[in-house]
Amino acid sequence: MGVKAVVEDYISKKDRIISTAIDIICDSGLSALTTRNIALKENMSEALLYKYYGSIDEVLKDVVDYYFKFDKGIQATISAKESSYIDKIKAYVDSYASYYDNYYALSVIMLQYEELLHNPVTRDKVAEGTLDRREFLTKLFEGAIANKEIQPYIPPDKLSMVVTSIIYQLTLNRRFVFKKETFQSETNRFVDKMIEFITIR
Amino acid sequence: MGVKAVVEDYISKKDRIISTAIDIICDSGLSALTTRNIALKENMSEALLYKYYGSIDEVLKDVVDYYFKFDKGIQATISAKESSYIDKIKAYVDSYASYYDNYYALSVIMLQYEELLHNPVTRDKVAEGTLDRREFLTKLFEGAIANKEIQPYIPPDKLSMVVTSIIYQLTLNRRFVFKKETFQSETNRFVDKMIEFITIR
Repeated sequence: MGVKAVVEDYISKKDRIISTAIDIICDSGLSALTTRNIALKENMSEALLYKYYGSIDEVLKDVVDYYFKFDKGIQATISAKESSYIDKIKAYVDSYASYYDNYYALSVIMLQYEELLHNPVTRDKVAEGTLDRREFLTKLFEGAIANKEIQPYIPPDKLSMVVTSIIYQLTLNRRFVFKKETFQSETNRFVDKMIEFITIR
Repeated sequence: MGVKAVVEDYISKKDRIISTAIDIICDSGLSALTTRNIALKENMSEALLYKYYGSIDEVLKDVVDYYFKFDKGIQATISAKESSYIDKIKAYVDSYASYYDNYYALSVIMLQYEELLHNPVTRDKVAEGTLDRREFLTKLFEGAIANKEIQPYIPPDKLSMVVTSIIYQLTLNRRFVFKKETFQSETNRFVDKMIEFITIR
């Protein structure tokens, strides 16, 4: 292999390890995320795994980076949209709802914020990432209020917090309540209803 | 010591261990809950700790039991209240808000549902306990709608879910956003605002 191929192979192997780590966290919880379990699932020796990741915390750091990876791109797409703020809010929620519907294991990272906030390796990223998501949504609600699209009685940061917590709760629900409806349609229905309730007609 | 004193001493020692376990989970996360860390904090040997608890999972089981311990009592008190359903809902939320304000470390168990749902020892208790809390609140919202105290446009189970998720989110917020307001007043303000919004006048 040439240098380029070797580098590409190295990167794609790291990507696979992260994807396996996310599956382990989803299937068995954070306590099951060990180099031993990753090596087993990847059918490689732990010694080989250490060529890619020096410790389980390095893996976890990349898992969290991956979790927040598309945020800036999604925000840029929504900001560039020519539409009302209400439609921007709906499109923003739908981006995550659709993404998590297709990649369920990734959404479960959301349920582990508390433990990730205890880990010095992931703490800052989780705090910044979650606040950044919420602030973006707050700005959209601010716009919707300024534009007289929705009623001004509930402050925008509270509306943003409610949407964030609903997405969390619907994700947690899936862990112990069976639902026929997809996560995407359930989330959109819930948030649409909430927005409908505060919309000015 | 007589038999009674020995038994009482044994029980109060177990209580202290659970309280220490809750503090460890709050301060350092579930991954830090080990027999070694409990023994260190309790200034006892691990061998002595094993006289009270055979494994860390037994400790965790009692932590979760403690977490849900007062639910039935709170529900009975609220049900017996002679008041409107709206006031019952407010009193119900205030019971937890006030309790968690005084015992912050305990509220943090709520942020660990996901990991506790992965553990066979705590899974059923957490699923039943959370669903039970939510169903009780759903019944109160059903009563408020039947009594024409609040608007009927949002189904009671959804209202209950929103309140539950707001309490979760306010608890999580405390982990990385500094607040001057107490948890109790913040939670009550939020839920009051929400109820005010759907109240029929």
